[in-house]
Amino acid sequence: MTSPSATASRNELAYDLDRAHVFHSWSAQGALKPLVIAGGQGSRVWDYDGRSYLDFSSQLVNVNIGHQHPAVTAAIIEQAGQLATVAPSTATLARGEAAKRIVERAPEGFNKVFFTNGGADAIENAIRMARLHTGRDKVLSTYRSYHGNTGAAIVATGDWRRIPNEFARGHAHFFGPYLYRSEFWATSPEQESERALRHLEHVIQSEGPAGIAAVLLESIPGTAGVLVPPPGYLAGVRALCDRYDIMLILDEVMAGFGRTGNWFAFDGFDVVPDLIAFAKGVNSGYVPTGGVIISDSIAHDFDTMVYPGGLTYSGHPLAMASIVAALDAMENEGIVENAARIGRDVLAPGLAALQAKHKVIGEVRGVGVFWALELVADRETRQPLSGVVMGRIKSELLARNLLPFLAENRIHVVPPCVVTDAEVAEALAIYDEVLSLDLLG
Amino acid sequence: MTSPSATASRNELAYDLDRAHVFHSWSAQGALKPLVIAGGQGSRVWDYDGRSYLDFSSQLVNVNIGHQHPAVTAAIIEQAGQLATVAPSTATLARGEAAKRIVERAPEGFNKVFFTNGGADAIENAIRMARLHTGRDKVLSTYRSYHGNTGAAIVATGDWRRIPNEFARGHAHFFGPYLYRSEFWATSPEQESERALRHLEHVIQSEGPAGIAAVLLESIPGTAGVLVPPPGYLAGVRALCDRYDIMLILDEVMAGFGRTGNWFAFDGFDVVPDLIAFAKGVNSGYVPTGGVIISDSIAHDFDTMVYPGGLTYSGHPLAMASIVAALDAMENEGIVENAARIGRDVLAPGLAALQAKHKVIGEVRGVGVFWALELVADRETRQPLSGVVMGRIKSELLARNLLPFLAENRIHVVPPCVVTDAEVAEALAIYDEVLSLDLLG
Repeated sequence: MTSPSATASRNELAYDLDRAHVFHSWSAQGALKPLVIAGGQGSRVWDYDGRSYLDFSSQLVNVNIGHQHPAVTAAIIEQAGQLATVAPSTATLARGEAAKRIVERAPEGFNKVFFTNGGADAIENAIRMARLHTGRDKVLSTYRSYHGNTGAAIVATGDWRRIPNEFARGHAHFFGPYLYRSEFWATSPEQESERALRHLEHVIQSEGPAGIAAVLLESIPGTAGVLVPPPGYLAGVRALCDRYDIMLILDEVMAGFGRTGNWFAFDGFDVVPDLIAFAKGVNSGYVPTGGVIISDSIAHDFDTMVYPGGLTYSGHPLAMASIVAALDAMENEGIVENAARIGRDVLAPGLAALQAKHKVIGEVRGVGVFWALELVADRETRQPLSGVVMGRIKSELLARNLLPFLAENRIHVVPPCVVTDAEVAEALAIYDEVLSLDLLG
Repeated sequence: MTSPSATASRNELAYDLDRAHVFHSWSAQGALKPLVIAGGQGSRVWDYDGRSYLDFSSQLVNVNIGHQHPAVTAAIIEQAGQLATVAPSTATLARGEAAKRIVERAPEGFNKVFFTNGGADAIENAIRMARLHTGRDKVLSTYRSYHGNTGAAIVATGDWRRIPNEFARGHAHFFGPYLYRSEFWATSPEQESERALRHLEHVIQSEGPAGIAAVLLESIPGTAGVLVPPPGYLAGVRALCDRYDIMLILDEVMAGFGRTGNWFAFDGFDVVPDLIAFAKGVNSGYVPTGGVIISDSIAHDFDTMVYPGGLTYSGHPLAMASIVAALDAMENEGIVENAARIGRDVLAPGLAALQAKHKVIGEVRGVGVFWALELVADRETRQPLSGVVMGRIKSELLARNLLPFLAENRIHVVPPCVVTDAEVAEALAIYDEVLSLDLLG
């Protein structure tokens, strides 16, 4: 293997080192051409040559506060100067302050936080707690879901990424509501909700309620397509869980901490779960972290019983300092309110106008800064746009300096919560221009 | 719940917030009295009141480079000012440079690194790669092992922490060598090695070699008691893996990156695995990270086949910058050599002298800055010292400002790799004083 040349530009060096030594997620390594990124600010990132992109991906839908928020980077820098790492068995001020700020935003009756390294191990531990609390094994989750990449999280996941990874027992899957491609032959949101609930109840009865520890749901399934649940669905799931004494775990990893224009996505549905898994938005991913917010009745089990889970970097000082700063800044600067306003007043009408103009957009759905455009080859049959055409769309968006988030036949419109009206206008014009090209041919 | 008082000291505030809102690993929450830690430098940490402790735990055996190494904190601070977070699909200079430095220290034929958030998901992905490479399910690991807390990692683990977590299939366990408490009625290191290998081969044959993807071993089992393998054992395991076409995964999470006085613990045994899992020492845990170093033959599988694993914070910029700085500083400052010298010239004779003086020390074993004192109520029967007495020992060590690492009936002597002769002398005097107390009564 040849060494990258010393005279190469920093862009070339970063690219060459990556191709030589970095193994990437969810990819065949041979065909990758990773984009070089060197810096960022707010809703923009740039490479070493100074080429700048409007970030309508929020990377992996995590940079809710925008890139390089000065209060958050300052908090990391200050903590790095004091104490970068410490064992989870200790007590530190940053960890206590972070936990306090998280529970203050959670519903009443949630007072304890277990910190992890990210969303996947948050889900692992939420499942563990539900199993130990109920003394039952099974976990039900939807086929259209993504819950993370570790042993139990990836099997709880419903999408294709589960299939080569099925090494954990006790996971069963069901269909959630998705009116545009209804599994229940429904024709209205109300009917979709009612039928999806009947389907779930029949799965619960068929799997055996006495063996089910938890129903695990993304409050709004994200990677699966920003599938905002229809009226009554989440409340109906809560009622089913209560009827059968099953824990409800809500996965707020992608939807939580501002993305929907609420602190938690479930705040928009008047539902309270038993366990809340979080990551991403809590500190915008500035330092790897995640966790579980635990309702008192589950937390109390472990006052006297040993909790059988843990990890070296639980409550890591840099992560905790960044949570404190991020949540304070989001509060002080009205960042969650901005996400709500942008969604309601700018993205909703703007994306509706795009749909009116481009028949390739089969459906627009979302809330806050969490939207999906479902692209179809035919509005009647709703046949998804092919991967080849989606690849062309991605290239054309990148060529116009917009960093998009694409999943299957969808463009997810997921800018940071700090995105401005002008940035949304800029992005909408780029989507418009690209969707006007003759890419189908 | 009452709010912590505004007039409380920062120590009290940190403690009260922790007790109110932080859920701790591997513990019953009711009885916890976490130690407050506010800062550190080298081999020492301190609380907000300025009380200082000599850190002979390296926290969770991760702070190999010592606390607050200025080059590593400077690198984190610099990267935080440029770009705190970015998606793993991109290429960044810090990530490429980190991967390059890691593979440079690995054996020939290892050129790619997959980054994770920590050790547990490093093990998850190593297992996944071995299963996909071989097309087989089963993973063999020892009862005396710890491999992490996520779905597959915790079931690969052998110790008690596995038992309440057994939700993944395909894991079988065997006994590794441990002459002091031999499972094989052996009386010499050579016999223990030979018999442990025969036992492993019989387990492989009994589980069915054609179904076994990997043997997973800590090169030196750590939490299980710093069980340095006897001569020929690891080479013998490698030979068995070759004979049956099974992948050898070495878990270097605790033992790797300097702890043993080598870059990798397996360097001391002249053995090359197929996959190497790492975390902790690679950046001393200053930012959560870990990963898998992949041999070329396994990496090549995924040139054309999609690798079905990934995570949001894979190759996180702050973690990558801290790896580059930590590995450069360890190289430039001879930190690995210091660990080797301290082990050979200071800890080995010092701990042997302690054993000669205190009959409660049944065995001393280790290498580098990775040692265990096995404490026994009776040298003849080797009956482990009780938990009650171990608790008293811990309290007395803490009372003398030594932060110890205790596991079952053992004191693990695991200071940072930068520990000085004077600090070792100070710690040996404290161990000596405490073991001289009448604590058994």
